[in-house]
Amino acid sequence: MREIYFDNSATTKVSEGVAAAVLKSMTEDYGNPSSRHKKGVEAEALLKDARVAIAKTLKVQEKEILFTSGGTESNNMALFGAAFANRRAGNHIITTAIEHAAVYQPLAVLEQAGFRITYLPVDAFGHISLKDLENAICEDTILVSIMYVNNEIGAVEPIEEIGALLKRKKPDVLFHVDAIQAYGKFLIRPKRMKIDMLSVSGHKIHGPKGVGFLYLREGSKVKPLMYGGGQQRGLRSGTDNVPGAVGLGVAAQEAYTDFEQKIEHLYQLREKMLAGLSKLEGVQIHGCTDRENAPHIVSAGFSGVRSEVLLHALEEEGIYVSSGSACSSNHPGISGALKGIGVTEEFLDSTIRFSFGHFNTEEEVEASLLVLAQLLPKLRRYRRG
Amino acid sequence: MREIYFDNSATTKVSEGVAAAVLKSMTEDYGNPSSRHKKGVEAEALLKDARVAIAKTLKVQEKEILFTSGGTESNNMALFGAAFANRRAGNHIITTAIEHAAVYQPLAVLEQAGFRITYLPVDAFGHISLKDLENAICEDTILVSIMYVNNEIGAVEPIEEIGALLKRKKPDVLFHVDAIQAYGKFLIRPKRMKIDMLSVSGHKIHGPKGVGFLYLREGSKVKPLMYGGGQQRGLRSGTDNVPGAVGLGVAAQEAYTDFEQKIEHLYQLREKMLAGLSKLEGVQIHGCTDRENAPHIVSAGFSGVRSEVLLHALEEEGIYVSSGSACSSNHPGISGALKGIGVTEEFLDSTIRFSFGHFNTEEEVEASLLVLAQLLPKLRRYRRG
Repeated sequence: MREIYFDNSATTKVSEGVAAAVLKSMTEDYGNPSSRHKKGVEAEALLKDARVAIAKTLKVQEKEILFTSGGTESNNMALFGAAFANRRAGNHIITTAIEHAAVYQPLAVLEQAGFRITYLPVDAFGHISLKDLENAICEDTILVSIMYVNNEIGAVEPIEEIGALLKRKKPDVLFHVDAIQAYGKFLIRPKRMKIDMLSVSGHKIHGPKGVGFLYLREGSKVKPLMYGGGQQRGLRSGTDNVPGAVGLGVAAQEAYTDFEQKIEHLYQLREKMLAGLSKLEGVQIHGCTDRENAPHIVSAGFSGVRSEVLLHALEEEGIYVSSGSACSSNHPGISGALKGIGVTEEFLDSTIRFSFGHFNTEEEVEASLLVLAQLLPKLRRYRRG
Repeated sequence: MREIYFDNSATTKVSEGVAAAVLKSMTEDYGNPSSRHKKGVEAEALLKDARVAIAKTLKVQEKEILFTSGGTESNNMALFGAAFANRRAGNHIITTAIEHAAVYQPLAVLEQAGFRITYLPVDAFGHISLKDLENAICEDTILVSIMYVNNEIGAVEPIEEIGALLKRKKPDVLFHVDAIQAYGKFLIRPKRMKIDMLSVSGHKIHGPKGVGFLYLREGSKVKPLMYGGGQQRGLRSGTDNVPGAVGLGVAAQEAYTDFEQKIEHLYQLREKMLAGLSKLEGVQIHGCTDRENAPHIVSAGFSGVRSEVLLHALEEEGIYVSSGSACSSNHPGISGALKGIGVTEEFLDSTIRFSFGHFNTEEEVEASLLVLAQLLPKLRRYRRG
C-alpha cells in the first residue's frame, strides 16, 4: 500500500548514508574510545570526526559539541545544569508559553526547587515580543530558554535579536535555545546569535534515534546531568555511543549539503499544501503562511472533524500525520502553541500537523489533498448523523 | 594482521543478530512510538517486545524494565532518583570501596548534597563482609548500592545474601545492584534476590552502544533523571530509542540462549589463561582463581613491567587488553579494586586486565600466552637497561 509519511517532526527515516555509517561503526569500529589500544584510538578518532563535522555546520569549536542521548537529555542537561551551577547568581529563569515538554517539564521541576520562572506569551503567529522579554529581565535572571522553531506550528522565534538583547541588557545570562525542530532547516550561528547552549536531536534530521548533542559555549558554567567515567571532559560520562555519534555526524553533514535546494524543496511542499488546504472548506491554517515560518510544518484546523478521527482516516489511506492537540499541561504559564496563538475551542481538538522531510514529494502532497477533499465531507456527515 | 580482542569488559563487538535487528528497525520500523498512527504503533510494539524479552531473562514484569542510554544513566538514575525521592526517610547510603566510577561519582555528588555515605571495605578476594554491612545499617539508611561483579578483578559480591540481610534488618531500604559486568554472565533473579534496582548496559553483552536498562521493581520510589514528553510512564522521557532497545532485546535473548555452554566456554578460556600465566615468572593473579569469580575477567600483575608498556607491546602483536590501573579517585573511602584487595605498590601500576567474550577462542588464549612468554623477559631487560 501507498505510504505517505508526513510526520517528520515526530521522527524521520534514517538516510541510507546514516544507516551505512552506523552499521559500519557498530560492527567494525566497535572499540571503546576510553580504551588505550588501537581499537580504542580508532573509535576515539571517529568520535572526533563526528564532532568536527557537526561543529562545522554551526561554525563553532569541536570541543563545544557534547554528545547526548537525544534532544530531551540535551534540554534537561542545559536547564538543570545551568540553573544549579548558577544558583548563587540568581534564581530567575525566562522562557515562553509554547516550549516543548522537554523544556517546560524540567522548568516545572526547577520551579518546585525554588526557581522563579517567567513564561512569555506569544502573538497570533506564535512569536514572543522582544519588549516583553526586555521587561522580564531582572537582576536575578540567570537563564533564558527559548525555542528556535515551535514543534506544533513552525513559528520561528527571533533568536538573533534575543541574543543581542540579552548581551546588551545582561551579558551574564545564559541563553539556551531548543533547536530540535530548527537544526538542519536553518543556518544557525551560535557565536553571532550569542547562544550559549543549543539542543539538537539526531532522529529529527534523518539521523539515528537515541543520540543528540548539546552545543555548549566554551566557558559556560553548567553542571553535568550524569557522573561516572569522566567522558566528554567530565561533562557527560558514559561509554561514548560511537555509532550514534558517527550517524549523527553524517546526518548533520547531509542536512547542510545542498542546503538551499533542500530548504526550497520543503518550502515548495509547504506552499503546495497551504494552497491546497485553503481551497478546502472549513480549514484554518495556524500561524504564519509565508516564509517567516519553518519550511517543514503545516498546522491546520478542520472544522467539525476531531483530529483523532481525521488522523486515523488518513492512516487508512496510508498517510501518516500528527494530531496537533492542545497542550496537556495544567500549568497556568504554559499554554502550548495552539492556545498560545489564540486558536478557538472549535479548532483546538480538530488540528492536524503535517510535517515534511527531504524524502517527501509534491506528488505526495497532491495525493494527500485529494484524499482530504474526499474524506472531510464524509467525516463531517458522520458527525452530524 | 591477527586481532585478539581481550577487552570485552570495556566493550564488545555487536553480534550479527543484533546488527541486523538494529539496521532493520532503523530503516524500516522508524516510527516514533508516541505517534498514534500505524508506524508509531508498530514501533511501540517492537519496543514492548524488547521489554518482554529482557524481562524474561530476569523473570520480572515487562513494565519493570526502563530503557536508558546505558549503564551510566541507569546508575545515575537509580542513585539520584532513590536518594532524592526518599530524603525524608533518611540520608544514609551504603556502598563498597570498589564500585565503578558511574556509582561512586554520583554518590560523591550526593555526599556534597548532604547525604552520608558508608564505603564497605573488601577482603583479599574483593568481597565485602555481611557483618560489616549489617553493622553499617542504621535508622537513617535509605539506599544500599553494591555491584554484582567488579569490573577490574571479576569479584562476585554475595548479592542474594545481601538482599536477604536487608529485607530482614530494614525492609524499606532500596537495594541497587550495578550488574553491568554481571548481566549475561549470571542468572540474576531480582525478586528472589530482593533487588529493587538493577543497572545493565547493552554494549557489554554484544548489544549496541548508547542503550541500557534499569530494572525498577514495581512500587520503588525514585525520581526521574530527565523530564519531558512523559515516555516510559513518565520515568524516562525522550523519544524512545527503538533500534537501540530492539538490539538490546536481541542481545539479552542471545546472552541467555545456550547459557550454560557459553559460560562454560568463558570459564575454560579463563582457566587456560590462569594456568598459562601461573607458569610465567613474576606474575601475580589478583582475586579468586576459582569459579567463585566471574567467568570473563582475569586480572594479573606483571612484576617489573609497567602496564602501559605491556598494553602497547601486546597491541603491537594485535592483542587488545586493558591496563588494570589503580583507582584514580582521591576520596578516602574509595580504594578501587586493586588497592582494596591489598595489591602491593609493585603491582598497582603493572596490572593488565584480560576480559573475554563469547567470540574468543582457546587458540587466542594460547597465542597470547606465547606472546607474553616472549615479551616479558624483553620488557624487563629494557627496563633494567
